Amino acid sequence: MEFSSKLLENAVDQMSQLPGIGKRTALRLVLHLLDQPEEKTKRLTEALTSMREKINFCKSCYNISDSEICEICSNPNRESQVVCVVEDIRDVMAIENTGQYRGRYHVLGGKISPMDGVGPGELNISGLVEKAKAGEIKELIFALSSTMEGDTTNFYIYRQIKDLNIITTTIARGISVGDELEYADEVTLGRSITHRIPFETSLKRS
Amino acid sequence: MEFSSKLLENAVDQMSQLPGIGKRTALRLVLHLLDQPEEKTKRLTEALTSMREKINFCKSCYNISDSEICEICSNPNRESQVVCVVEDIRDVMAIENTGQYRGRYHVLGGKISPMDGVGPGELNISGLVEKAKAGEIKELIFALSSTMEGDTTNFYIYRQIKDLNIITTTIARGISVGDELEYADEVTLGRSITHRIPFETSLKRS
Repeated sequence: MEFSSKLLENAVDQMSQLPGIGKRTALRLVLHLLDQPEEKTKRLTEALTSMREKINFCKSCYNISDSEICEICSNPNRESQVVCVVEDIRDVMAIENTGQYRGRYHVLGGKISPMDGVGPGELNISGLVEKAKAGEIKELIFALSSTMEGDTTNFYIYRQIKDLNIITTTIARGISVGDELEYADEVTLGRSITHRIPFETSLKRS
Repeated sequence: MEFSSKLLENAVDQMSQLPGIGKRTALRLVLHLLDQPEEKTKRLTEALTSMREKINFCKSCYNISDSEICEICSNPNRESQVVCVVEDIRDVMAIENTGQYRGRYHVLGGKISPMDGVGPGELNISGLVEKAKAGEIKELIFALSSTMEGDTTNFYIYRQIKDLNIITTTIARGISVGDELEYADEVTLGRSITHRIPFETSLKRS
């Protein structure tokens, strides 16, 4: 792509370094900003800058937060001894959106993945194990994605806390509500059958 | 979407005002910036800010340019009397990429579109007509998109210059090179047949 302006080229270059944004999309976005009042670009760049500079992570659960301890961890109405282990803050938001969970979280910041050079040391695992050893956790819910990396991470954490008298659970896997059996993949359908639950239990929640 | 941080929410809000970027995509982009060194966000915001504040439009053709007159208009090796009328700078880039055009451009900045509230006054038409009246144009090539708005704009300009002894042409429409006839839409194929060219002419260019 040939640009008639270095300023434009530089803006498109920077924009296209964002994931999933190619050069063409970047150009479209940048030209949109040019079409709009200067104020709009200012608001965007200021929002990004102040977020990047000032954002905090909760000291307890590593969730993104504007205060030292996030709103979830500091909420006295939540069960403090139930902790759900998730990969990143998008998972926290997804679970919060269900409105079905009243415990706390622990955000690992990724999964153990030797292929990507991510070892246990890069993740927020030690803080979780400390909390567990200090007797602050009654139940630990593993909610990582069910991939090789997710399973490895679960197991790595499990090994360190298994003698601590903590209930460890993992979120249920099975075919989605509303899905038809014939289109489900066999691994998922297999899990749905193996981990079937009493019918009365299924009536409790919609 | 519930956010645990106002800073994050604000950044996502601003990002999702870009065209084609929804809240989820915006969140993905913003979290990516959080994952990366602070330097990266700085480079992006600085590139956008300085582009928005400092960018110029060529005084002659209204193309984006870092100087008063763009590189194309100031290039003595280009035919200054052949002017291609386009909608925006993306069209300039597309035509430049073909390497087949040696004339200049005139960027209108849009099409006449009463439905969107864009009249001739909002576009860079008067500058073009002035150039034509001053005898600076020998051939005017219309290269707007072939929609109702594009045709209206072409005709609006044509009416003002038709007595000026200027050759007016429009880019050829027809089925794409490499396309199969059976899959072409009938309007395009119809144009291909109506505006057929001598076979010897077709041999000149690949």
